[in-house]
Amino acid sequence: MKLPLTFFSFARALVLGALFALGVHAHAGDPLPSWNDGATKQAIVQFVKTTTTAGSPQFVPPAERIATFDQDGTLWVEHPMYAQVMYCLDRVPEVVKAKPELASVEPFKTVLSGNREAMAKLSEGDLIKIAAATLTGMPVDVFQADVKKWLATAKAPRFKRPYTELTYQPMQEVLAYLRANGYKTYIVTGGGQDFVRVYSEATYGIPPEQVVGTAGGTTYGYDQNGKPFLTKEPKLLLNDNNAGKPEGIHLMIGRRPHAAFGNSPGDQQMLEYTQAGDGARLAMLVLHDDAKREYAYGPAQGLPDTKVGAFPQVLLDEAQKQGWTVISMKNDWKKIFAFEQ
Amino acid sequence: MKLPLTFFSFARALVLGALFALGVHAHAGDPLPSWNDGATKQAIVQFVKTTTTAGSPQFVPPAERIATFDQDGTLWVEHPMYAQVMYCLDRVPEVVKAKPELASVEPFKTVLSGNREAMAKLSEGDLIKIAAATLTGMPVDVFQADVKKWLATAKAPRFKRPYTELTYQPMQEVLAYLRANGYKTYIVTGGGQDFVRVYSEATYGIPPEQVVGTAGGTTYGYDQNGKPFLTKEPKLLLNDNNAGKPEGIHLMIGRRPHAAFGNSPGDQQMLEYTQAGDGARLAMLVLHDDAKREYAYGPAQGLPDTKVGAFPQVLLDEAQKQGWTVISMKNDWKKIFAFEQ
Repeated sequence: MKLPLTFFSFARALVLGALFALGVHAHAGDPLPSWNDGATKQAIVQFVKTTTTAGSPQFVPPAERIATFDQDGTLWVEHPMYAQVMYCLDRVPEVVKAKPELASVEPFKTVLSGNREAMAKLSEGDLIKIAAATLTGMPVDVFQADVKKWLATAKAPRFKRPYTELTYQPMQEVLAYLRANGYKTYIVTGGGQDFVRVYSEATYGIPPEQVVGTAGGTTYGYDQNGKPFLTKEPKLLLNDNNAGKPEGIHLMIGRRPHAAFGNSPGDQQMLEYTQAGDGARLAMLVLHDDAKREYAYGPAQGLPDTKVGAFPQVLLDEAQKQGWTVISMKNDWKKIFAFEQ
Repeated sequence: MKLPLTFFSFARALVLGALFALGVHAHAGDPLPSWNDGATKQAIVQFVKTTTTAGSPQFVPPAERIATFDQDGTLWVEHPMYAQVMYCLDRVPEVVKAKPELASVEPFKTVLSGNREAMAKLSEGDLIKIAAATLTGMPVDVFQADVKKWLATAKAPRFKRPYTELTYQPMQEVLAYLRANGYKTYIVTGGGQDFVRVYSEATYGIPPEQVVGTAGGTTYGYDQNGKPFLTKEPKLLLNDNNAGKPEGIHLMIGRRPHAAFGNSPGDQQMLEYTQAGDGARLAMLVLHDDAKREYAYGPAQGLPDTKVGAFPQVLLDEAQKQGWTVISMKNDWKKIFAFEQ
């Protein structure tokens, strides 16, 4: 049977249509619409093209495409306090209800007073005591349900929205763009691994097993019906900050990332470790220089390092020395939040 | 333009051909050809159908499809000694070359003697000393390269083949069958996480990030050129045996598995934890009862628990009580190894 050429064209269109419906061509148009054109956006697009185009000298096999993202200040707002710290503070009254003797003990007394100014002055040691009291001692299931409940009602003070709406739209686009090009995206956070895993899938499309964070031990045991459960223990297994980030990446992933994104001194080692691998690597730092739409802190304000991890001038110098790309929220991001008009 | 029906049939065939080429239909025929028909094989097929058929009351969303597999004795041969123990013993001469003072110290002296009988009598404490000396103290990259080199030449004593050929063909089929149905397959091993990750992808199609095992800490540092690297430390972070298996699953995966496979008392808690979840769960124990094609040990021989983790009668009783399925290698497996004729 001899068929006319038009037939083949039509059949080809059908096949291509089927391929398209299967998502083989994931992107028509700009994959990063919330980014302004410029060197920063170009660095991301160039990295993806270089590492995923067959025949490229810096091609990375799909199995090795790993990208890691710090969370607080990199994927969502970390000011004026980490969401997890807000959670811990909000949970103190319940903890004190179960253990009334804590009401007259610091730092719980200060938290119960509701005095925001005094709370802002709590030391790191105080916060660790609060974290231990509010994040450990309960079954894993109970903790997860409680975080979920809190996230459904808590609102961030400035934006008056749920914390999970305060993610950066341009970074959500980077996550999606990398995934569409075969990258496995991971969160590598100094925050609590169990905390972030509760919402990572719904919020970022990142499943719990791709969240590496500061992690405590659990203990396996049985309830009175013989049903097994895990209890969260106040035993630190991984402090996923600074050197802990590459150590945590090795522990939980076992491969060196090809791309890494951070915003604070706690991310420096992760970026160094990523950059030190062979071939094309992408290392990026988010600079908070947009006081109007979000916050300006760190070198953008000539400020020293702050509690919430803004990066100091020395990290900016390091970025220049190592060839990391600095993302200016003010200049590189057309839009910061999905809810913006 | 009106086109004849045959045109559409032809176009449809092209489209289906394209879909097929994309692997949309992964299975034609029996997905478990090395399994004999019977209740055991049926339990696996039934579980997969029940949890993956849309509309089934026990349907599991793709994101939650997690299956965990012990390795030694479950995915590959563990007799007469774990492959990793063989690796450690083989590495002793090199360690002694670097530290000659160890030559006259036990247990290194016994290992250097080459006396297999004496080596078989080494205590657990001796083996831990050997493990610490041979598995820690070096950069992660050096360790990985060394394991790779060893695997390429070492042969298992009875089968005279590389260890990586001693995987159970029926279990390889289960791994592939589960993956073709959207399950993420994990190894959850008492063996060293860093060791197993070296070959898991090539041997089982399981990437390093899906290997949970006994894990030690690493330390991040810099070489004399300022290049960062990780050193393996003799600091135990996770003993991935017994209660450590569900604890390790929580730490590394963060979700309860829907299916779990083991063969020894070290797997009991993982199977309990899996079974205790809601909906359909699959918990299976491999019984080594085939002295001819592999080995017979544990309850199949009325033997007590052995060093290599064969399960004792009490675990068989537990399996019956809990409704776990026992896999008889002798009766359920048509073929044990891919190399069998």
